[in-house]
Amino acid sequence: MQSICAIEGVKAAGIKEGKYGLALIEAEGTAAAAFTMNKASAAPIILMRERMKKGYLTATITNSGCANALTGKQGISDAMEMAVIAGEYLGVEPETVGVASTGVISRYLNLPLIRDQCSRISPTLTHSADAEITAARAIMTTDLTEKHALVERDGFVIGGICKGSGMIAPNMGTMLGYVYTDAEISQQDLQGALKSAVRRSFNRVVVDGDTSTNDVVFLTATGAAGKVPKDEFARALEECCTILGKQIAKDGEGATKMIEVVVRNALTEDDADLIARTIVGSPLVKTAVYGEDPNWGRIVAAAGRSGAEIDPEIVSCWIANRNIRAQVCDRGTIAADLSQAKAALSGGEVRIELDLALGKEHATAWGCDLTEKYVEINGKYTT
Amino acid sequence: MQSICAIEGVKAAGIKEGKYGLALIEAEGTAAAAFTMNKASAAPIILMRERMKKGYLTATITNSGCANALTGKQGISDAMEMAVIAGEYLGVEPETVGVASTGVISRYLNLPLIRDQCSRISPTLTHSADAEITAARAIMTTDLTEKHALVERDGFVIGGICKGSGMIAPNMGTMLGYVYTDAEISQQDLQGALKSAVRRSFNRVVVDGDTSTNDVVFLTATGAAGKVPKDEFARALEECCTILGKQIAKDGEGATKMIEVVVRNALTEDDADLIARTIVGSPLVKTAVYGEDPNWGRIVAAAGRSGAEIDPEIVSCWIANRNIRAQVCDRGTIAADLSQAKAALSGGEVRIELDLALGKEHATAWGCDLTEKYVEINGKYTT
Repeated sequence: MQSICAIEGVKAAGIKEGKYGLALIEAEGTAAAAFTMNKASAAPIILMRERMKKGYLTATITNSGCANALTGKQGISDAMEMAVIAGEYLGVEPETVGVASTGVISRYLNLPLIRDQCSRISPTLTHSADAEITAARAIMTTDLTEKHALVERDGFVIGGICKGSGMIAPNMGTMLGYVYTDAEISQQDLQGALKSAVRRSFNRVVVDGDTSTNDVVFLTATGAAGKVPKDEFARALEECCTILGKQIAKDGEGATKMIEVVVRNALTEDDADLIARTIVGSPLVKTAVYGEDPNWGRIVAAAGRSGAEIDPEIVSCWIANRNIRAQVCDRGTIAADLSQAKAALSGGEVRIELDLALGKEHATAWGCDLTEKYVEINGKYTT
Repeated sequence: MQSICAIEGVKAAGIKEGKYGLALIEAEGTAAAAFTMNKASAAPIILMRERMKKGYLTATITNSGCANALTGKQGISDAMEMAVIAGEYLGVEPETVGVASTGVISRYLNLPLIRDQCSRISPTLTHSADAEITAARAIMTTDLTEKHALVERDGFVIGGICKGSGMIAPNMGTMLGYVYTDAEISQQDLQGALKSAVRRSFNRVVVDGDTSTNDVVFLTATGAAGKVPKDEFARALEECCTILGKQIAKDGEGATKMIEVVVRNALTEDDADLIARTIVGSPLVKTAVYGEDPNWGRIVAAAGRSGAEIDPEIVSCWIANRNIRAQVCDRGTIAADLSQAKAALSGGEVRIELDLALGKEHATAWGCDLTEKYVEINGKYTT
């Protein structure tokens, strides 16, 4: 078991037929959620913002292929119908079913197909390694890899799956995520831990700066493992979400390299966060990394336009990978070992480090390079 | 004459040798400027922010190929030296010379080359159609076309040249621009008119969302035509800057289509502005336009994440060109004539219209599609 089915009592099932997939996950417990901040929120988001106030879930149903976004009143009624369908086949109250959709915006759902797929997969719901894989695959759209995470601690475990590849920008969620734990934890603490973890994980993943209409992360605690220390749980949850978030960055549409940006010694964490996300989202930084071009001026230029406090006269900058750490700027002075910096860009994972020398706060963000393939994928996604 | 040399007394000269160019423009008068908001401002920007407080210019000197950005104290002294060189050859005070640079960031200037090029072109300074073309070409980097504008009014004219193709995002200037007029106008009114015109023209051009370290627009009024009505001047200046800005959008790195986004009936002009710029800067909108894919959900999704006030339930949207205007969304309801919308995307200029139905304010922004060519250009710009 590598993710959600490592938690006792979690059952999953999934199906993917061409562009159209359906995933069911069954698990009862205290629940929390984080949603997209996009004002053009999809129908399932609008519905779940209301329904998650209860802080309790028995299951989730998710379709891929159609986002049920910008679909007005019919969209809301369709999202409610998805919960009814799941409730029927799982024998649970529709109001306790989490609903999510991902895919093309501005299309209505094909409810007969969803009902048909649900009827076929609900008998296959199991607590198994296969089941979590099938569910993770069912929710993929342009994703090339399924995404799992499992964090084990003394006395409890947290496991999650997610999807996300394009329309990825940091603003609550930025993808679909399903996280489960056997820890017993109050709804308030669960929501608090999720908010904090999302801020430092999913919200720091940028593929293209386009915040989705459909982002949501569901977190359900079954309580089977009993009470756990709140802070330890929060740290483990952040680790789980970070593992998932980095997989989204790595699987960014068209990506050939994952980029990690570490900003140190900022005045505030918000500043560090803003600079890290601006750098990792900059098309010019992303294309330079793709071209293995150590054009580090673009890194500092992106930091400069971020809106955060920065003094270019005292900034230091490194381009690194697992083996090489090349300093290109030393407290505002060009210190470019460009051949070493170029070598550091040659692998599949690149780390950019910026020391602002202003304060003591830090942040890390993740993204990927920008390639011709991203253009190709998104130039013909609906057709 | 198609731009700056249409103004009496303006002389220009330029040279472009491989990646390295130099332009001189001579014209004496009351002057104003708008600068990049990037905190990692280039040395010439730092210098000119100070020197433009006098509100007076006799000439400008601009090099292309090296941005003189992130170059610390040496960069400032190099920028001052550029003014000294121009002063020597033109016989004017260095403190009255506008200095600008564009090109690769984090490299020091080649001052011997700049002095050599200046010595060769200063004897060729003329008031002629050829001269303005040579100057416009000398400042190009990844630009494919030179950019001119001329606005003639009863009693006065305004002419300008500019460069800009990549690292283009709306935040004051976002390119190099040189605008001249024979109108007589106070420094305060000149600065006010420039600020307002830049806001509605250059600042609404987005190529890639990366705000440059080097953006500046210089505006010089020779006064030869005598006093002119302030409001009429402001309108004519906005028109001149818009003509130039649209040329930057059209010549965006790798662009095959210009995109114009018109947002109507917003609560405030700031909201309309923010939505128009977010749409025209969205990688997903840009790639959809490139692929001629009428995936209008991405348009409303971009508006939704802009941060501006929007109610997706009452939004209307059109995709249009000169001949076709296809409505794809009617007050929140899918109204997609997708074949017509696809046809509207087939030409070299595309217009996206959004009616928010919330207020009475409007804004227009300009950009271009995102293509494999953009990735190619920026994956190997320094090497």
